[in-house]
Amino acid sequence: MKLLLINPNISESVSALIDSEAKRVANKSTEITTLTAEFGVAYIETRFEAMVGAYATAELAARHASKFDAVIVAAFGDPGLLALKEALQVPVVGLTESALVTACLLGQRFSIIAISQRISAWYRETVQANGLIDRLASIRTLDQRVQNIGAIQQEHAAELVTLCNQAIAQDGADVLIIAGAPLAGLARTIATEIPVPLVDGVSCAIKQAESLVSLAPQTARAGSMAKPPVKPNKGLSEAITKLLAADVIR
Amino acid sequence: MKLLLINPNISESVSALIDSEAKRVANKSTEITTLTAEFGVAYIETRFEAMVGAYATAELAARHASKFDAVIVAAFGDPGLLALKEALQVPVVGLTESALVTACLLGQRFSIIAISQRISAWYRETVQANGLIDRLASIRTLDQRVQNIGAIQQEHAAELVTLCNQAIAQDGADVLIIAGAPLAGLARTIATEIPVPLVDGVSCAIKQAESLVSLAPQTARAGSMAKPPVKPNKGLSEAITKLLAADVIR
Amino acid sequence: MKLLLINPNISESVSALIDSEAKRVANKSTEITTLTAEFGVAYIETRFEAMVGAYATAELAARHASKFDAVIVAAFGDPGLLALKEALQVPVVGLTESALVTACLLGQRFSIIAISQRISAWYRETVQANGLIDRLASIRTLDQRVQNIGAIQQEHAAELVTLCNQAIAQDGADVLIIAGAPLAGLARTIATEIPVPLVDGVSCAIKQAESLVSLAPQTARAGSMAKPPVKPNKGLSEAITKLLAADVIR
Amino acid sequence: MKLLLINPNISESVSALIDSEAKRVANKSTEITTLTAEFGVAYIETRFEAMVGAYATAELAARHASKFDAVIVAAFGDPGLLALKEALQVPVVGLTESALVTACLLGQRFSIIAISQRISAWYRETVQANGLIDRLASIRTLDQRVQNIGAIQQEHAAELVTLCNQAIAQDGADVLIIAGAPLAGLARTIATEIPVPLVDGVSCAIKQAESLVSLAPQTARAGSMAKPPVKPNKGLSEAITKLLAADVIR
Amino acid sequence: MKLLLINPNISESVSALIDSEAKRVANKSTEITTLTAEFGVAYIETRFEAMVGAYATAELAARHASKFDAVIVAAFGDPGLLALKEALQVPVVGLTESALVTACLLGQRFSIIAISQRISAWYRETVQANGLIDRLASIRTLDQRVQNIGAIQQEHAAELVTLCNQAIAQDGADVLIIAGAPLAGLARTIATEIPVPLVDGVSCAIKQAESLVSLAPQTARAGSMAKPPVKPNKGLSEAITKLLAADVIR
Amino acid sequence: MKLLLINPNISESVSALIDSEAKRVANKSTEITTLTAEFGVAYIETRFEAMVGAYATAELAARHASKFDAVIVAAFGDPGLLALKEALQVPVVGLTESALVTACLLGQRFSIIAISQRISAWYRETVQANGLIDRLASIRTLDQRVQNIGAIQQEHAAELVTLCNQAIAQDGADVLIIAGAPLAGLARTIATEIPVPLVDGVSCAIKQAESLVSLAPQTARAGSMAKPPVKPNKGLSEAITKLLAADVIR
Repeated sequence: MKLLLINPNISESVSALIDSEAKRVANKSTEITTLTAEFGVAYIETRFEAMVGAYATAELAARHASKFDAVIVAAFGDPGLLALKEALQVPVVGLTESALVTACLLGQRFSIIAISQRISAWYRETVQANGLIDRLASIRTLDQRVQNIGAIQQEHAAELVTLCNQAIAQDGADVLIIAGAPLAGLARTIATEIPVPLVDGVSCAIKQAESLVSLAPQTARAGSMAKPPVKPNKGLSEAITKLLAADVIR
Repeated sequence: MKLLLINPNISESVSALIDSEAKRVANKSTEITTLTAEFGVAYIETRFEAMVGAYATAELAARHASKFDAVIVAAFGDPGLLALKEALQVPVVGLTESALVTACLLGQRFSIIAISQRISAWYRETVQANGLIDRLASIRTLDQRVQNIGAIQQEHAAELVTLCNQAIAQDGADVLIIAGAPLAGLARTIATEIPVPLVDGVSCAIKQAESLVSLAPQTARAGSMAKPPVKPNKGLSEAITKLLAADVIR
Repeated sequence: MKLLLINPNISESVSALIDSEAKRVANKSTEITTLTAEFGVAYIETRFEAMVGAYATAELAARHASKFDAVIVAAFGDPGLLALKEALQVPVVGLTESALVTACLLGQRFSIIAISQRISAWYRETVQANGLIDRLASIRTLDQRVQNIGAIQQEHAAELVTLCNQAIAQDGADVLIIAGAPLAGLARTIATEIPVPLVDGVSCAIKQAESLVSLAPQTARAGSMAKPPVKPNKGLSEAITKLLAADVIR
Repeated sequence: MKLLLINPNISESVSALIDSEAKRVANKSTEITTLTAEFGVAYIETRFEAMVGAYATAELAARHASKFDAVIVAAFGDPGLLALKEALQVPVVGLTESALVTACLLGQRFSIIAISQRISAWYRETVQANGLIDRLASIRTLDQRVQNIGAIQQEHAAELVTLCNQAIAQDGADVLIIAGAPLAGLARTIATEIPVPLVDGVSCAIKQAESLVSLAPQTARAGSMAKPPVKPNKGLSEAITKLLAADVIR
Repeated sequence: MKLLLINPNISESVSALIDSEAKRVANKSTEITTLTAEFGVAYIETRFEAMVGAYATAELAARHASKFDAVIVAAFGDPGLLALKEALQVPVVGLTESALVTACLLGQRFSIIAISQRISAWYRETVQANGLIDRLASIRTLDQRVQNIGAIQQEHAAELVTLCNQAIAQDGADVLIIAGAPLAGLARTIATEIPVPLVDGVSCAIKQAESLVSLAPQTARAGSMAKPPVKPNKGLSEAITKLLAADVIR
Repeated sequence: MKLLLINPNISESVSALIDSEAKRVANKSTEITTLTAEFGVAYIETRFEAMVGAYATAELAARHASKFDAVIVAAFGDPGLLALKEALQVPVVGLTESALVTACLLGQRFSIIAISQRISAWYRETVQANGLIDRLASIRTLDQRVQNIGAIQQEHAAELVTLCNQAIAQDGADVLIIAGAPLAGLARTIATEIPVPLVDGVSCAIKQAESLVSLAPQTARAGSMAKPPVKPNKGLSEAITKLLAADVIR
């Protein structure tokens, strides 16, 4: 099985973290390919940055998805996820949605531990768009501005552990989501220090993608996840134009 | 006061409808400029198309917004609206949010009348993201595939009136939103045939934009509507790069 | 355009504040008339006081509304607002609903800053009745009993600024509503001290009323905003009796 | 124990129905007194009528409540209920809230059967204000305009039974609320024809009031149900003035 | 009238508390019988313990309910309540649901005061399953592990009073539920120290059960509260087998 | 990896269906063991039956779980699921929750296709307890009473396909959950006839269980999913007594 991970931000260091964590958790027979957005920002904290990341992800997906069994949108907040679910003919999952549904299997209420205060509004809206706001115990975040996105988990490990323990003791979390690709792998590193299960977006997404490929559901030909109706367009890349052209026969 | 309307789809005929309706309703001293997306699709019904429209809108906004007092995202579902609210230093409103809040002033529950069945999932999610799902009585839509987007209100006027009356009698709507830029102006045309107030996205957006400019609220320098923190980026257009560069001093 | 503002409490000093703020923000061609409730209490903090204020407002509206293009219920919690929307043939808006919808255009989540702890339950219920509770970040209030309602913003300006900053930093508010007619104008005074947009009920209500008059929606002849069905009544004032008598022909 | 029932509408025939049903279900030692609003409308279907009914009820309650152990607001939609809970020093319950909580003990989801289509918006809002909208299966109503409010249950019994059966079979109701004082007693009359429990506002309110009197909870001296803070007022009836004057010592 | 109270935990000391409080509040003509679970745990804090308690309660109910006019599930979280409502032919109420609905009549928002931190998740879910989460102001609990369940209210009275006052001042509660059978009677003991009404599960359940018996609603023969359809079973106790055998004729 | 599936009902024919579907979808290295409840009913449609099934499942789990890497509660409505998540030291997943979260990855809104009208209330509550009611488009069910639970999918295949198509066209479902162990495998059989993805509880549960075992989250030692605190108990089976005895050291 071949999985394509697309990092919607431009940081190769983050892609490397994602790729490494993905390979660690994937089944032996799963091949992992990780691509980095060709345009965009260093890391995504806001809706504007997510919008840019979504488009950059779509470009890469349109170009490469046909060679893979599933696609993973590998950034915080799942930029462009629903758009790609419509357009691609293979399963597409996001880091956030995968972490959310996995957390739901491990506890009734989850908290999210994230890298910056600015990111919390965007993540709260993502949980809400997933319909899971009632299971969100809290979002707790580092409070400085991010300096070195590639080293954030090394430099802030102790603070992140503190946030985890606060979420359990004060917010009633049964399970914690360590959110954001820059924190990929941290859940594994600090697991034994924390008295509840930790969930990591990358590893959850790999497992959910593998499961979907294995379950092999039919591609939607009706409903809101079917391909967009064919219609005139212009100015799009060759790959996206081709993606939108191939209408499903009904 | 100068208002910039950006049509996120590529249909000049739709832009003309929008422009005409906007000018009809604007205050005398308001100057209206309507731009059409330089890339994208003929009309937006899906999340993928909205993602493309959002990016095309952002490109135009980044290039032109500094010359205007407010910007209006002039398409169904408000593609990219929250992203632009973050990035621009002037008020930005969307057709949908403007219609929703105006409808809320005219009745307790509203229905939405729209051009295609496919569009309803996307619109439902927009209402949900606006936090107003409890006031949504129903979404009723034409059920054929759209053929001629520029002529849709002429060709389907009678069916649209029927949908309106069903929403009142069967769904408990106090007010109706005639949704989608291709229906701009229809609310005015059929108003006397319908026994409840009708709301039109374009006219509502003009009025809300004029009001915001007049109220002159401070630009956000904190909270989730402040500009995204400055960080490395690449591959973006000159205009977007410049937009993201100008960080707010705190 | 002629707008009638009705202050549902009996404080002429509050009416003066409202009137002054209304005139400052209204379009040049808009004529403002502000009336004060002929019976009731000095300021409204509770459901009982709101019930009294609603009735006093209805009496004035029944007597005067026919000479105006729109009516504004100019007190906290919008006492009697939905009742008047049913009964009057012109648009009616409330301070609270106008502030809420305007805040929604300026940010995803809003906090409310109010004059007394007692008032917060009543305001929370108003937000809930508007269907916008999911966008409410918090309500923060002064904690002493109100002494001098006409001077409250002068005497408590510093505390109110502190509450504003707490709502931003601790509650995640993108925008703040300075609530209650006794605080009319404060948003303008302290705007530059606060790093997010501030919203004021009076100014928002003027702008929303002007917009509705300009949009000229049909009066509801069906749905729950149509006039109450004619039926026997007794003991009502002449004005209210007349208001209820004129049934709409269907 | 002495219970005061106040009919917020002016129809003596409805008061007679209420009084008779109340006496039938009350404990032997409970004395029932039923008063009729001195001003208002023949029956309440709308928010405006409810506002009038609330004020008329408050006048009677202010004058008489001190001689009773509890007060019952005996009309559809519980006009003025929360206001009276604040102001009076004895328990106050409404027909609707009593029916709702009793229905909750008899089934997971309830439907409401009511006398007119117009009334349904107002009743839906009442359920929502009680926080119980998720347990509402449906509201089904007669669809003609009410002609003879005192004879409505005789003239429409068969239609009402049909509505009941539809709510069970099509809407998933476990229990039905026969809503509105004009239908008082109908639940008893048709009970054996309907395969789920029926709930009647008057009888539920009597039982809930008797229970509260028997449980003898402390009167609120804090929180939002405490008496409104004393403040200047004018133009109120002697009884209401007196009611608002007696501040609780804290 | 004969009421059967079943304590789902095995603590005779708790049954004695329940029985005493029940007899204190019951009408003179009401006979109270209190049974203790024949198997299970000393007190119920978790979902697993509630599951055990539910089954033990069902065994006793199946054996004894036919001799009573109503059954009360007399433990925290109402273990097995909906199951028994389906299976028994008499009204069944729970301590929690009775306290919740009674609290709703006394205030708009309630807090719950409980015996252990561990219990709060289970109670929160119970409120949610009752559809009343929007009226929950907070859950505040003792924070040590329970040592002596029979003496908990004596040993922790002062802390419990502090929790009550915090819920009023900080969480906005209008009314407090003193939760859990081990605290039966405490509401009465501390009532005068607390400035809002207190609600106790046992006394509320007695009153609600008496009311339902008096109202005498029909037993459900349709909907989700009707008896489970007859079908093959095995390995059940004689009493449960008999309970499931007697199908309702439709 | 060894997975234990426990069928909470007593039907060996249903266990055989479950076992067969589980083995078909499991990874090669996964060993499947399927046990059937030793007491209970033929199939579970109601809360009472679910309560019995929960207890029967707990008995088997307590006896056998220590020899497995994860446990699957293999019936409709996930009887006893949260209880077992607390008590067992290995991951536990339910058919329903697994189907729900998998459906969420394949579409925004799902419908549930089920075997009997009676079952729908119980399933609706399960969705609600999972916090996913906003993503539920509808529940559609066969409307006769179940005759032959082992043969239901053969005998009703055409009707079930019709229900699927109605859910897509009329209710807006993007994905369908074929609910209930007796329908295990049907999703696979009819997949090509239905234009949206179908989700099956058994196969989803196997994949989710395999993923959790592979992710190897820490067992909860805090929060509401930790083992119940040790306390006196009596009358429990040897296996459950042992399960509750082993307290986690903190």
